[in-house]
Amino acid sequence: MAEVHQATCTAPVNIAVIKYWGKRDTRLILPTNDSLSVTLDQDHLRTVTTARADPSFQAGARLWLNGVEDEIKTGGRLDACLIELRRLRAEREASDASLPKMSEWGLHLCSENNFPTAAGLASSASGFAALAVTVATLYGLDDILSPSQLSMIARRGSGSACRSVFGGFVAWESGTKEDGSDSLAVPVAERDHWPELDVLICVVNDGKKGTSSTSGMQRTVETSPLLQHRIKHVVPERMAKMREAIAQRDFGAFTALTTADSNDFHACCLDTAPPIFYMNDTSRGIVHLIEEANRARAEEGKEPLAAYTFDAGPNAVLYMRKGEDANTVLRLVQHYFPGADFEDTFNLLGGGAGAPHRGETEPQALPTLPPSFNREVIPVHPVGSVRRLIHTRVGDGPRVLERGLGKESLLKEDGTPVRLQRAKRA
Amino acid sequence: MAEVHQATCTAPVNIAVIKYWGKRDTRLILPTNDSLSVTLDQDHLRTVTTARADPSFQAGARLWLNGVEDEIKTGGRLDACLIELRRLRAEREASDASLPKMSEWGLHLCSENNFPTAAGLASSASGFAALAVTVATLYGLDDILSPSQLSMIARRGSGSACRSVFGGFVAWESGTKEDGSDSLAVPVAERDHWPELDVLICVVNDGKKGTSSTSGMQRTVETSPLLQHRIKHVVPERMAKMREAIAQRDFGAFTALTTADSNDFHACCLDTAPPIFYMNDTSRGIVHLIEEANRARAEEGKEPLAAYTFDAGPNAVLYMRKGEDANTVLRLVQHYFPGADFEDTFNLLGGGAGAPHRGETEPQALPTLPPSFNREVIPVHPVGSVRRLIHTRVGDGPRVLERGLGKESLLKEDGTPVRLQRAKRA
Repeated sequence: MAEVHQATCTAPVNIAVIKYWGKRDTRLILPTNDSLSVTLDQDHLRTVTTARADPSFQAGARLWLNGVEDEIKTGGRLDACLIELRRLRAEREASDASLPKMSEWGLHLCSENNFPTAAGLASSASGFAALAVTVATLYGLDDILSPSQLSMIARRGSGSACRSVFGGFVAWESGTKEDGSDSLAVPVAERDHWPELDVLICVVNDGKKGTSSTSGMQRTVETSPLLQHRIKHVVPERMAKMREAIAQRDFGAFTALTTADSNDFHACCLDTAPPIFYMNDTSRGIVHLIEEANRARAEEGKEPLAAYTFDAGPNAVLYMRKGEDANTVLRLVQHYFPGADFEDTFNLLGGGAGAPHRGETEPQALPTLPPSFNREVIPVHPVGSVRRLIHTRVGDGPRVLERGLGKESLLKEDGTPVRLQRAKRA
Repeated sequence: MAEVHQATCTAPVNIAVIKYWGKRDTRLILPTNDSLSVTLDQDHLRTVTTARADPSFQAGARLWLNGVEDEIKTGGRLDACLIELRRLRAEREASDASLPKMSEWGLHLCSENNFPTAAGLASSASGFAALAVTVATLYGLDDILSPSQLSMIARRGSGSACRSVFGGFVAWESGTKEDGSDSLAVPVAERDHWPELDVLICVVNDGKKGTSSTSGMQRTVETSPLLQHRIKHVVPERMAKMREAIAQRDFGAFTALTTADSNDFHACCLDTAPPIFYMNDTSRGIVHLIEEANRARAEEGKEPLAAYTFDAGPNAVLYMRKGEDANTVLRLVQHYFPGADFEDTFNLLGGGAGAPHRGETEPQALPTLPPSFNREVIPVHPVGSVRRLIHTRVGDGPRVLERGLGKESLLKEDGTPVRLQRAKRA
């Protein structure tokens, strides 16, 4: 059997605490402002991608996403990533004649998320990061490209994907050059820098499909007067303060900045013509709940319970301290939003780590809270308003699972996917 | 029988199209920016107030609001209005010894709205305007005070009340003086300037009490970086454009400015720490519906169907052209938000003017819409999401109904209210 040229890698999801919204160049995906994110643990949320190059494959590339073949549009974002990766491979081949001419071979790409699409989590960040890392590994570019250089390739697929090439706390520096060569991700702090930070994702039930972030953000750039102020004045100041808050592990400052920036971002969406709404009444309920808990703690001179942030959708991502605080947040959310599915990753509820819980449909007892906490701050919401809770933590960067055809491969020996799904209707 | 010194006047509701949000002086109620409003017709929405002065009344003042006696707090807003009115009356008495010494007599004030409190409409604007006009009339100050001067007294009660002393289209100029002597309302255009403009108020069902506008706006002033940009740059430009749009009766520009400013105001509320939400999912539904209708009309080269604006609550106020457009808006709202109570002021539905309609709980047929209108833009909402629809139009300024004790009086001969309600528990 001929040698199999293949790599299988994973990349993590990241959630911004200083938000990216708006491009100064839509083709190169260059943002209007810096942003900063927290990388989540790939043990819970990740994209895994297998890439194989073979001279017998048809020229160009084929892609399967979660077992369904997807068209690769010429001139599209994925195409832009692949062109850049092939170009770099061809350079290597030109300088070392012993290398196989993979840059000219067809490519099979197979990608899967370990979280259900139904979870409502954006997968483009982990997806394009995994793609860039996997093809770079296949092409042997991982030795010559720094992660920041790799982040520029991932960026061409989806802006926020560039931040998923690092673990821990990551900044995307917008850069100023027209060719985008200084618009890249840089590490702010390692995953282990702030080990007590935990994350609870609240997947919110939402009837309708919202505005896509790609079209939404450019409408904001074109129509919102407030966004210009955010870009020029609000974000630069907040980026500096956020770096400092992370450096000092100052959860109070981290919470104030994270919540303010989430609200500022959604304010700019609302200031768009026509306005864009991503948060719904359930999202608002979560905000009121966390703000009230934080207020009651502040009254006792204590640090906040949790920080909330919302991306381009209704789901809340909560940052909190692990242990007792995480337990309080979980039980608070479960009380006011009954019926959410939950896998008890860290055995907070005592039924064993990873135990699945079909959320109780009756409201659960409240955890211990400061006496001034107003229990009437929001009503107990209808069952299933929050569909699912995912408890995770800060994670590491992309992982190379294997080179060649092994047990991690998503492609069979014949180059077709291990798992094939019937295509869904659009 | 001794002469009865009494006046009964009415004042209208006004709805801002360029919003007031934030005070530079909270005691004098001086705003951080100019604002501009449309006065609504008192035939449909108004406050009527009777004021009587009598030497036999106990010193100071008593007030009945909708038949319930209300405490007048020393140093409060109502007190500030009355102190100013008594001071002006005392000046007149000092210069004309023949005048009765009303400035020293006790005062009875009785005030009623012709719209139910349950309608969820703020009544402080019409209420304080009616108070200022009625006491000024009782004191014989109406000849010496211009409406703009009167607006400064109403302003001390509630900022937006100053705009209710004029009919038609009204600007509140924020002024720059520390004593507030240049912070007053001025007419922008008469009521009859734009006779084709109609108004539909959608009273939205809301479970909970929101943040009061008084405390909310100061929190925004203190914490929102975006508000400062709104105050300095966004509003001044929009005020000029709005004056021009009204002068030209340019409904397209009027709609673009009105919707943009409503969204900008709510964006600043969201940018507040903690964030303030006034719009709920029903409000968002109305926005999506009107935006889609406007988009579909624009595609046919037609002017928008309606402009929406939201004050410090979930209710939508829609501006539209009377006749066919008003009919379309009404039937569109009734289709997607079934079950709203509606009094057919202008006989749009053919059952006779003023005919009451208990909204149909089954969705009604859609009106004729441009072919590209997306009927799936929002789902048909649960019955009663919009509780009530009020159809009105642009109206005139305050009216003096009568001087002395006549059929319009809200006070009986003995100085007590004609209609007394049992006090509700707070």
